[in-house]
Amino acid sequence: MDSKIRAAIVGGTGYTGVELLRFLLRHPQVEVAQVTSRAQEGVAVADWFPSLRGSTALTFSAPDVDRLSDCDVVFFATPHGVAQAQVPALLARGVRVIDLSADFRIRDVDTWEHWYRQPHGCPEAVAQAVYGLPEVNRAQIRGAQLVACPGCYPTATQLGFIPLLEAGLVDPTRLVANAASGTSGAGRQASVDALLSEASDSFKAYAASGHRHLPEIEQGLRDVQADGAAPAQLTFVPHLLPMIRGIHATLYAPLNTTGEDLQALFEARYRDEPFVDVMPAGSHPQTRSVRGSNLCRLAVLRPQGRDTVVVLSVIDNLAKGASGQAVQNMNIMFGLPEQAGLEALPLSP
Amino acid sequence: MDSKIRAAIVGGTGYTGVELLRFLLRHPQVEVAQVTSRAQEGVAVADWFPSLRGSTALTFSAPDVDRLSDCDVVFFATPHGVAQAQVPALLARGVRVIDLSADFRIRDVDTWEHWYRQPHGCPEAVAQAVYGLPEVNRAQIRGAQLVACPGCYPTATQLGFIPLLEAGLVDPTRLVANAASGTSGAGRQASVDALLSEASDSFKAYAASGHRHLPEIEQGLRDVQADGAAPAQLTFVPHLLPMIRGIHATLYAPLNTTGEDLQALFEARYRDEPFVDVMPAGSHPQTRSVRGSNLCRLAVLRPQGRDTVVVLSVIDNLAKGASGQAVQNMNIMFGLPEQAGLEALPLSP
Amino acid sequence: MDSKIRAAIVGGTGYTGVELLRFLLRHPQVEVAQVTSRAQEGVAVADWFPSLRGSTALTFSAPDVDRLSDCDVVFFATPHGVAQAQVPALLARGVRVIDLSADFRIRDVDTWEHWYRQPHGCPEAVAQAVYGLPEVNRAQIRGAQLVACPGCYPTATQLGFIPLLEAGLVDPTRLVANAASGTSGAGRQASVDALLSEASDSFKAYAASGHRHLPEIEQGLRDVQADGAAPAQLTFVPHLLPMIRGIHATLYAPLNTTGEDLQALFEARYRDEPFVDVMPAGSHPQTRSVRGSNLCRLAVLRPQGRDTVVVLSVIDNLAKGASGQAVQNMNIMFGLPEQAGLEALPLSP
Amino acid sequence: MDSKIRAAIVGGTGYTGVELLRFLLRHPQVEVAQVTSRAQEGVAVADWFPSLRGSTALTFSAPDVDRLSDCDVVFFATPHGVAQAQVPALLARGVRVIDLSADFRIRDVDTWEHWYRQPHGCPEAVAQAVYGLPEVNRAQIRGAQLVACPGCYPTATQLGFIPLLEAGLVDPTRLVANAASGTSGAGRQASVDALLSEASDSFKAYAASGHRHLPEIEQGLRDVQADGAAPAQLTFVPHLLPMIRGIHATLYAPLNTTGEDLQALFEARYRDEPFVDVMPAGSHPQTRSVRGSNLCRLAVLRPQGRDTVVVLSVIDNLAKGASGQAVQNMNIMFGLPEQAGLEALPLSP
Repeated sequence: MDSKIRAAIVGGTGYTGVELLRFLLRHPQVEVAQVTSRAQEGVAVADWFPSLRGSTALTFSAPDVDRLSDCDVVFFATPHGVAQAQVPALLARGVRVIDLSADFRIRDVDTWEHWYRQPHGCPEAVAQAVYGLPEVNRAQIRGAQLVACPGCYPTATQLGFIPLLEAGLVDPTRLVANAASGTSGAGRQASVDALLSEASDSFKAYAASGHRHLPEIEQGLRDVQADGAAPAQLTFVPHLLPMIRGIHATLYAPLNTTGEDLQALFEARYRDEPFVDVMPAGSHPQTRSVRGSNLCRLAVLRPQGRDTVVVLSVIDNLAKGASGQAVQNMNIMFGLPEQAGLEALPLSP
Repeated sequence: MDSKIRAAIVGGTGYTGVELLRFLLRHPQVEVAQVTSRAQEGVAVADWFPSLRGSTALTFSAPDVDRLSDCDVVFFATPHGVAQAQVPALLARGVRVIDLSADFRIRDVDTWEHWYRQPHGCPEAVAQAVYGLPEVNRAQIRGAQLVACPGCYPTATQLGFIPLLEAGLVDPTRLVANAASGTSGAGRQASVDALLSEASDSFKAYAASGHRHLPEIEQGLRDVQADGAAPAQLTFVPHLLPMIRGIHATLYAPLNTTGEDLQALFEARYRDEPFVDVMPAGSHPQTRSVRGSNLCRLAVLRPQGRDTVVVLSVIDNLAKGASGQAVQNMNIMFGLPEQAGLEALPLSP
Repeated sequence: MDSKIRAAIVGGTGYTGVELLRFLLRHPQVEVAQVTSRAQEGVAVADWFPSLRGSTALTFSAPDVDRLSDCDVVFFATPHGVAQAQVPALLARGVRVIDLSADFRIRDVDTWEHWYRQPHGCPEAVAQAVYGLPEVNRAQIRGAQLVACPGCYPTATQLGFIPLLEAGLVDPTRLVANAASGTSGAGRQASVDALLSEASDSFKAYAASGHRHLPEIEQGLRDVQADGAAPAQLTFVPHLLPMIRGIHATLYAPLNTTGEDLQALFEARYRDEPFVDVMPAGSHPQTRSVRGSNLCRLAVLRPQGRDTVVVLSVIDNLAKGASGQAVQNMNIMFGLPEQAGLEALPLSP
Repeated sequence: MDSKIRAAIVGGTGYTGVELLRFLLRHPQVEVAQVTSRAQEGVAVADWFPSLRGSTALTFSAPDVDRLSDCDVVFFATPHGVAQAQVPALLARGVRVIDLSADFRIRDVDTWEHWYRQPHGCPEAVAQAVYGLPEVNRAQIRGAQLVACPGCYPTATQLGFIPLLEAGLVDPTRLVANAASGTSGAGRQASVDALLSEASDSFKAYAASGHRHLPEIEQGLRDVQADGAAPAQLTFVPHLLPMIRGIHATLYAPLNTTGEDLQALFEARYRDEPFVDVMPAGSHPQTRSVRGSNLCRLAVLRPQGRDTVVVLSVIDNLAKGASGQAVQNMNIMFGLPEQAGLEALPLSP
């Protein structure tokens, strides 16, 4: 490719921002043209993120539609509610948008407004958005102008349940997703609960009575069910891990049949997926094994040979759960090799 | 009480050993007379456990039935298989025994031998053993000569499910226990998997296809079910937390009815229990809140008002999950106040 | 003792507050009568600190001099600047005050104002305050009405240097204290730097060009030097550890003589101290070994037999470094056994 | 470059092994031809290191001089003592060797044998070895057939002291290096001390009376001193951090003069170094900021304007402290761009 893709990151001062920069600054076909932040306008990006010292001369700029329109693609690494306001003008100018926030993930605007407790700022763009889970929607992503990147829990959970639901092997009304995330999922905001003194050396569930990722996951699961199936219904309990990166989802479902070769089913489903690794029977994927990479590793088992299937699914919440998947989507949208810029191996130990 | 109870600890070089010492050395009615270890015979206990420097002049001695018989009570903090060999002689001499290992927890010897992959060394004593979960068996513990202390996962799991199963409110054949433990549960043995470099900053399931605590939990759950109920059947997946102490069990069950006031049910069940704390509706108990104490904290909820009940249960695996519960059992056996020696408050933060 | 000491804690919502409560609620001769907090007035203490559920029925009250005057002793667990305003009225009414903040630690008011960048609100009480390091000032503490509890770094550092400086064995102008603290030292304030995502799995120095504990340490060291000695001068670099509790100070000084038996010197100096443990030659005290206890453990060595002495000193920053030492001071002030309420053994592992 | 460099790793089952693979499997001009392990012969590398699943089809082979001689370069990631036995045969066949162990770091064989407590197996090759610290020995590395990669502590410590010693600004007989390392420095061996249950949530010094890196550091420091200077003498105390990766060295030295612009000195010394980052005055480099990268970040300061200089130095012990530096050396030896294969940005958070 002759000229590089010009990319901008809106709201680049948080963890998904620095993770996007980690991938994009080393992407062979991308030039990061802008990183915006109203609060840090004028500050050198490498002063804000010392890990980037020596790797970039960018400074944070104020977000400006005209300037952003010079770019081929704009990533939104903003809290929900922000992209809604800025996306329409960019779409109108032909810029492609990859939104890492929740703004365009849920097709039903009422549902979105119920869970996010605010009016949706741009309902007309929702229908246009493609849900950026390449393992399901690769073809639509290719032609999309607006991609809504899945949430971290939804990515880990859907990739684990999809083969079972597509094949109709489980009772879809009794799904359980017991998930746990490192603290980086809460972002880079000052808070007491996420202090090391509070969150380390401890473990707890949170938002057990209802987490915003629930409707997103149920929507995604229903999308892959066969016509006529009872709509997927999930009990979803997220937990906070005393560590930085990683999501582990432990998924449970009652099997309709115990005759199926589940290992073969999963391997066949993901055979051609560059970022999904079905581990051998008996494996226990650990979050460590995907740290810093865009991989999802899965294992499937049927404990004691009984009629409950268990799927273990791990991702790095900042990579496949956010910024890595965003770059994967960009690669698909621009016809690049899907692994471009995402080749770095997991950091281990 | 005039004279103190003379206690011995067999196999005192591990984590349950030092935790027993932490409680017993400060117990107002106990004198720790012996701590045994073949491997460390002659070594000062305070040299082995620097945390105890200045608090005890004991040295490890070789285990000897005659000397142990001088004691009123002997705690076994040994790997499974050890207590079986030594317990009969002690029982014959009238010594009371509290076994922290798995040797006498399972009433069906065949089941024990299947899961622990060795012949049981003392099947005749199994029937005599009382399962030391005071919240269920307090009366029998009072008169017991041999108490089998429950495992850590079984304690957290049973305390969470008991009110539901006693009341017959859930489908007992579709129970799920998603549990997670700190690394101290694996004991103080050299191992690669439990290195900080391997286990920290990561999370994984283990023994997902079958953990030895499964038959123990199922036995305990079935014991509290009403006659005629379908026997409890559990899917149990343990996970390894990147932290030292604490067990968190997240329990799921399909409700037979959604009309019951679950909060009231739990509060009534545990009203008089000194070590079980039913937290207010909406709570998320964290392992931190019980660290170093003998408490179990519980919360019960019905996410989204649907027909799945979720129970959150936390204990300190070394305290209520092992050594603390052992001391609680001793207090009951000897007619002491149940909280004697267990008053220390959780360490926070 | 017939009636219990009535104690109040002003500013009890932070880590030194909950640690005071952990000690005082189990102190056999103390009744905690009040815990104040303007911000949390009316909130149950056990709702704020779930670790205390079941152990106290107190609610936070607004600080009020009249009500506080009902108490025998008032602990200030407040940020610096607060005690200064409230202490005079309490002293005037004969209440004894133990201040855990920095307000009364430094005798030279100009120095205090320079380092704390604000006018001192109560310079007239400074001279009255006794610096509450029992190992140096036990006699004065006994009769004091106002005790200024030492800071955490100052406690660990002074206890390590004192034997050397008292004996005049080192060049006092070339002292180095390389110290490291867990994050609980930063308190329970929302902050980005102390997030688990920022502070775990990392290590750094901070305030290397000048930390507020420097003048406090130098004052304390100079107090124990013989007349005529060159005043102690310290290079002090604190570091932030990826853990919650514990301070480790590694102290360096050039020896004037290499003929001295340093081990014997240290053992003699601290022989009668209930909370200072001089470990055997060759030991490496770890913070773990004092966690949750009021102990300081020390080791002294002369690497390679050269002329630099190294002292290793560990404390729990919230215990001997703050709330434990405060209770120790209270015990001394009220003629109680010095270890009362402080008997709990370190939590290990 | 037309054909790729064929590389072998001897002893590839540990942490420096997997870190070499992380770099070399993504190095554009390298083909990893062999990874040896006697113990794991025949095991797939990706089964041993799940983080590498999908990235390599290699299996561990037994080390064999003939087969190794097919390679252009052989890395030894073995415990000390191993390379000594195998290196001569490889050198004789013209293979280039990069030894990550301590076998060839110390020029004085007696000193080596004293500290490593065994006879040196290949003293004749010692003189031939070039000490692989590129910032000092780049020219010699270029032509070397055998490079001895520096230890982790020696790298961080030397890079911090070099500018001061070269310029003769400090008293070289009073150097102090207070250093701390993550647990990965202890390697992937089963051990009690390095268990998460032992090493997390705690901090301690170790080997304070004499660590094997001391003679290596002193040799390196003396090499850069001007003729006639008093030979560098160091007090070196390493500590164990409750985290996986990272070394932080805090260096102290008495200044001969306080008139020098230390910031300018450091910046000038490292201006052209691709992997040394001198941070702005007032910075506190954190290990986090170099995690996974080959960088060393430094800060220099003079606390309180006194006459002691403090240098803060951080590296990733497995990267710049071992495998990254080994790849840097390889790049220099083979005339490749020095940053080839080492471009990945630090993982943050």
